[in-house]
Amino acid sequence: MVDLPAIAFVGLGIMGRPMAGHLLHAGYPLHVFSRTRSKAETLLAAGATWFDSPAACAAGADVLITCVTDTPDVLDVLFGVNGAAGSLSRGSCVVDTSTIAPSGARQCTERLSAAGVDFLDAPVTGGEIGAQNATLTIMVGGPGAAFERVRPILATLGKTVVHVGPSGAGQALKACNQILCALNMIGVCEALMLAREAGLDARQAIETLAGGAGGSWAWTNLAARLAGGDLNPAFMIRLMQKDLRIVQELAQQEGIPLPGTALAQQLFRAVEAVAGGGALGTQAMILAYERMRGLSLAGH
Amino acid sequence: MVDLPAIAFVGLGIMGRPMAGHLLHAGYPLHVFSRTRSKAETLLAAGATWFDSPAACAAGADVLITCVTDTPDVLDVLFGVNGAAGSLSRGSCVVDTSTIAPSGARQCTERLSAAGVDFLDAPVTGGEIGAQNATLTIMVGGPGAAFERVRPILATLGKTVVHVGPSGAGQALKACNQILCALNMIGVCEALMLAREAGLDARQAIETLAGGAGGSWAWTNLAARLAGGDLNPAFMIRLMQKDLRIVQELAQQEGIPLPGTALAQQLFRAVEAVAGGGALGTQAMILAYERMRGLSLAGH
Repeated sequence: MVDLPAIAFVGLGIMGRPMAGHLLHAGYPLHVFSRTRSKAETLLAAGATWFDSPAACAAGADVLITCVTDTPDVLDVLFGVNGAAGSLSRGSCVVDTSTIAPSGARQCTERLSAAGVDFLDAPVTGGEIGAQNATLTIMVGGPGAAFERVRPILATLGKTVVHVGPSGAGQALKACNQILCALNMIGVCEALMLAREAGLDARQAIETLAGGAGGSWAWTNLAARLAGGDLNPAFMIRLMQKDLRIVQELAQQEGIPLPGTALAQQLFRAVEAVAGGGALGTQAMILAYERMRGLSLAGH
Repeated sequence: MVDLPAIAFVGLGIMGRPMAGHLLHAGYPLHVFSRTRSKAETLLAAGATWFDSPAACAAGADVLITCVTDTPDVLDVLFGVNGAAGSLSRGSCVVDTSTIAPSGARQCTERLSAAGVDFLDAPVTGGEIGAQNATLTIMVGGPGAAFERVRPILATLGKTVVHVGPSGAGQALKACNQILCALNMIGVCEALMLAREAGLDARQAIETLAGGAGGSWAWTNLAARLAGGDLNPAFMIRLMQKDLRIVQELAQQEGIPLPGTALAQQLFRAVEAVAGGGALGTQAMILAYERMRGLSLAGH
């Protein structure tokens, strides 16, 4: 029997916790750290080992997987006080599954290369359900040799694991994915608003159009949630806004105007302006349309 | 053996000709008229009967199917000089498969009702290929009894035939479909532009994201055409613009702002401004983005 590499996992949120669980279940020795220790408890009961900092967690690990929120969070885990970079051994590899700026990924690659540590940007799509069912799509940028070494680990977490280019390429493709999600959602909201006001049955409308040229994952899944009045997150507006900010930063660097994405950001912003709006699912964009539809000029 | 009802078919364009062919093949006695007689020739050779006007074509038919472009065209076929309305017999039914304004459909319903003629709005989606393969989706508005009478005829033309409400409801649902197509296309263009400029392989990007939360019919089919440099129409920009004008007229009546649809109209307009642009497929929206990307400030 071959010894499996030791994995350090930092960030046990909605996505990270089930991902870490799959690794543990697959037999990998697992070190864990998260800002909130209580999130690790089921993992610790199942055999994971707790450490009190990223540095302690990463010491002795062959692979460090990070699953946090934004670029500054990844930089902090790696290069902050008690950051992992100081204790990663030469020849180890960092796999960052967070969605951050491609430039942030390239910065990590450069800063770690001096210590002989590889860095792969490996953002995921598929949401909480994909993390729980190990059906994530994982888009990886970075050196091909490092990708091949960690591929079996990633295959434990997702069903589609693709190497898409050099450092930052995974993040760039994730950015493309978020553009599609944002624009498809505008389509869902405008089509549903019209369907509703024209007196159509929303569920029949969704079903009739789902298989045609207007069909999308968003229409099949999120329009159906809207038809049932369900604004709970498959993906939170607050996180989508973070991702779209990354999209626009990248687009600005490349000199590409993205007016559709900009419109989605503004519509999401209208929902964020309501208390609790940012924690709703992206389909809650429809609240912005409903508010516009219901504008009253009385008493202003 | 039951005698099949006689069908008059007016409008033998890209969509109408294959649809009429299926009816002939199914054994329906078929009268045909089109502005250009040459478009009828294969049908005439196969047993259809030519008439020189909509009025002559509709005389003695149990069902009149119209397949033309816009609201004025339908009104002209029915109520213009030598229009069909004057010769349709009491108890017959008009099925309009064109995409027109819901208000236009209601107007036809009212004007024909005095003569005891039913009118169904029955716009289709699925494009030329759907018409050829009889796999169209047909969305029908109008009286349920009339729908049930013509359902077997429509089942010859499409695989999804749905009665969605009273007069105009089929057109309203078609309007929703066109919104989805327009917005999904903005997503396709913005995602592809970013993928390209970020140095990603377009085909790999399309394949990787197709099965996820960003996926859509447009991404799978039209992004793939774009990756191959193919701007040929699955659906022409010129016709999409006609449909989006109908969408906005309806939205204005209902008091719904549709900013995403408006953006799509402007981007398509930029392509239409180029000679021949309106005859390209909707995926040629990307030309507007490429032009913005390639703006030169030199020399002015």
